[in-house]
Amino acid sequence: MIEQSTICAISTSPGTGAIAIIRLSGTEAIGIADQIFHSQAGAQLLSDQPANTAHYGQLIYNGDIIDEVVVTLFRAPHSYTGEDTVEISCHGSVYIQQKILEILVGLGASLAKPGEYTQRAFLNGKMDLSQAEAVADLIASSNAAAHRLAVNQMRGGFSAEIRELRNQLLHFTSMVELELDFAEEDVEFADRKELRKLAEKVESLIGKLKNSFQLGNVIKNGIPVAIVGETNVGKSTLLNALLNEDKALVSDIHGTTRDVIEDVVNIHGTAFRFFDTAGLRETKDHIESMGIERTYHKLNEAAVVLLVVDTQNPYSIILSRIEKIRKRVTEGQHLIIVANKTDIGREETSNQLRQMQLQENEELTFIVAKEKQNLDELIDMMARVVNADALYREDIIVTNIRHYEILKNAHESILRVLEGLDSGITGEFLSQDIRECLHYLGEITGDITTDEILGHIFKNFCIGK
Amino acid sequence: MIEQSTICAISTSPGTGAIAIIRLSGTEAIGIADQIFHSQAGAQLLSDQPANTAHYGQLIYNGDIIDEVVVTLFRAPHSYTGEDTVEISCHGSVYIQQKILEILVGLGASLAKPGEYTQRAFLNGKMDLSQAEAVADLIASSNAAAHRLAVNQMRGGFSAEIRELRNQLLHFTSMVELELDFAEEDVEFADRKELRKLAEKVESLIGKLKNSFQLGNVIKNGIPVAIVGETNVGKSTLLNALLNEDKALVSDIHGTTRDVIEDVVNIHGTAFRFFDTAGLRETKDHIESMGIERTYHKLNEAAVVLLVVDTQNPYSIILSRIEKIRKRVTEGQHLIIVANKTDIGREETSNQLRQMQLQENEELTFIVAKEKQNLDELIDMMARVVNADALYREDIIVTNIRHYEILKNAHESILRVLEGLDSGITGEFLSQDIRECLHYLGEITGDITTDEILGHIFKNFCIGK
Repeated sequence: MIEQSTICAISTSPGTGAIAIIRLSGTEAIGIADQIFHSQAGAQLLSDQPANTAHYGQLIYNGDIIDEVVVTLFRAPHSYTGEDTVEISCHGSVYIQQKILEILVGLGASLAKPGEYTQRAFLNGKMDLSQAEAVADLIASSNAAAHRLAVNQMRGGFSAEIRELRNQLLHFTSMVELELDFAEEDVEFADRKELRKLAEKVESLIGKLKNSFQLGNVIKNGIPVAIVGETNVGKSTLLNALLNEDKALVSDIHGTTRDVIEDVVNIHGTAFRFFDTAGLRETKDHIESMGIERTYHKLNEAAVVLLVVDTQNPYSIILSRIEKIRKRVTEGQHLIIVANKTDIGREETSNQLRQMQLQENEELTFIVAKEKQNLDELIDMMARVVNADALYREDIIVTNIRHYEILKNAHESILRVLEGLDSGITGEFLSQDIRECLHYLGEITGDITTDEILGHIFKNFCIGK
Repeated sequence: MIEQSTICAISTSPGTGAIAIIRLSGTEAIGIADQIFHSQAGAQLLSDQPANTAHYGQLIYNGDIIDEVVVTLFRAPHSYTGEDTVEISCHGSVYIQQKILEILVGLGASLAKPGEYTQRAFLNGKMDLSQAEAVADLIASSNAAAHRLAVNQMRGGFSAEIRELRNQLLHFTSMVELELDFAEEDVEFADRKELRKLAEKVESLIGKLKNSFQLGNVIKNGIPVAIVGETNVGKSTLLNALLNEDKALVSDIHGTTRDVIEDVVNIHGTAFRFFDTAGLRETKDHIESMGIERTYHKLNEAAVVLLVVDTQNPYSIILSRIEKIRKRVTEGQHLIIVANKTDIGREETSNQLRQMQLQENEELTFIVAKEKQNLDELIDMMARVVNADALYREDIIVTNIRHYEILKNAHESILRVLEGLDSGITGEFLSQDIRECLHYLGEITGDITTDEILGHIFKNFCIGK
């Protein structure tokens, strides 16, 4: 355990609540708490109590009763940070929270920096760096898929596999480097065939992880969906109806999650991010206008395009609209034609739409947005075409941009190792490329860290974690 | 213990934090927690664990790991509610908090209503009603004095004394009522002299408590201070300088306390509430205008009036301004003449001000608001004239408007009892007045409650408390 000052912070969400938790961690944590905590059970010191016990009593400072609290005791190494830890559960008045913090600082604790508890957990070997990063992702997660990825990563995720491959590579490079010492004797300690096999394995894993980032990004930020169509076909009504499907209680609390973008909706546990395609929402004239390219460019970012059409119109008009959008929908995108207002629309139009030849990446559905009629089918369709379920099945997905950047570099260096093996470059150069790859992989797991890397990672944490 | 459903709620401040606490209370609390909590220590059931212990493990539902958590176990009657209670400390993502809540509800818990934990604590005899109300005051307290009053009240405050007097009155009224049964025999079981002594004691306490409400209100909401003066004398500069004195960390968190009114400042632990006296801030013409009375009416609400004057002006002009304000400052109010801009002002003006005859409720101080020069003296002066220290010494102060309204009624009925004793009314009427007083006193302590009273009190609590 690394000897460090004792830190304190409010660990619960800032503001007034029924209760708040103040966390004290470090070698002096229990001693400091003992100076102000008076157990209701009598003159007992926390220092004499067993680990993992909760105690009811008063916080008294300078003769003033600050609050009636419950303190919970954790002892090193069996705590989050790996240090002695005291959690003070007090009444959630901001005044009391700050007062207790002031007192703890007065008694020698220092205010924790953002993420300092987790940083200590990392430094004390309670978790590796990618697990530590997952803690921040977990706290920020706002939908089921993002949450699941963060939980996986926190529980080890891909870093165990990376560490294993890294150790094997490390062994090989030592062998290669040993050869250098015997350069004149032309020995080969590192079997080039074995090394190639291993490098291919590393390349395959890194490549897979690197490529998963795009998917990870979708999971973190929601599946991008564009709603397009002419004025008055019911686009806004549909969007509002879909927003109302957001049954997750999470939406009841406004401005509480960090990543809230307007119109991100959790439907049946999957996040959809609806695009503002204002340009396409304008009148026909506007669609024909100069701004059209910009709007269509936005369309390109969508995984799913919902083209809303009004069944009150004749089929021919609708078809020409569909044709226009079809030209803009590219491979890999999905077009769902949403025939709206079937309650008051022309039956003939609906029949003609049904008989229309759909292309491979197209779907057709009939709704009455105003009455929320048949929305479930549309939602299922959206989830199905993007294979939303697969998002849940996939275990190992990179969502962290730091990991992605490192993986790109690591991938380049392992490719150079493979090329080097093909072209039979000298052990010296080979070793250099392997070392580079090792360095990058170590940056993910935290086997290689600098203060700069740590500072960069933990500065984005909230205080108290 | 009253048998009730098991309730759950997020007890920490809403929103994202490092950790959040979800509280589960009721006969099924431990059983429900056991269905989803998997201890890291192995296949241990929480049901088999001793009270007041903390356990690390995973919450698993339908095979999905929801989070890694610490659960703390409390057993009836040794918990806040007096019921079996499980506190789940999870990662503070809003998604996770809501997910756990959903799962608990799915397993049979119901969502707690505002204040339901405290209401149960009251119903289970863990605290009386005024103590329960103090919990809400404590959570809302935003300055040292309000906090101290809430702590006192939570720890029993005046309700023990009221209950004691009430029990004695109850005894007397039984005696009086016994006399009624023997009406024809003209006996006197209740010694009228003793009853009078007791009624006087009750009257004295209730009167004192009733009268303390004004002070209690000041403590809760801050000492009202009006800053007045002509345009450009530096009123805003002074207010801003005073706002900057608000060194309490509490001010760093905006919009977090419920009672925040613009310009309430904690200075050295005392809350001052600065009035918007916009009318008086206007030009001379406006002061002379029709709106003047309304502005002066606001002035009447102030405990302290800070009249800011500019020492760049001749003494005669300043004096005429002072005279005008003097006419408006009533007995019990304090006027502090704040001579500003002494760095660039006329020395003659300052000298003349110093020689000016001050009235009993007046003080004079010289400052440079822009440079924050001599502000400490002004602050000390404000605290001294309103006797701020006394606010801290006084133990028993009524701050709750419900209590105040009841005390007014109780006071009226005990006065009628005293009058009745003087005029020698019949035992029947005497008993009726005593019963009325008993009823009111019981409403404070909670010995007499109705669902309506309880509903009214607890609806103002936050959820989770």
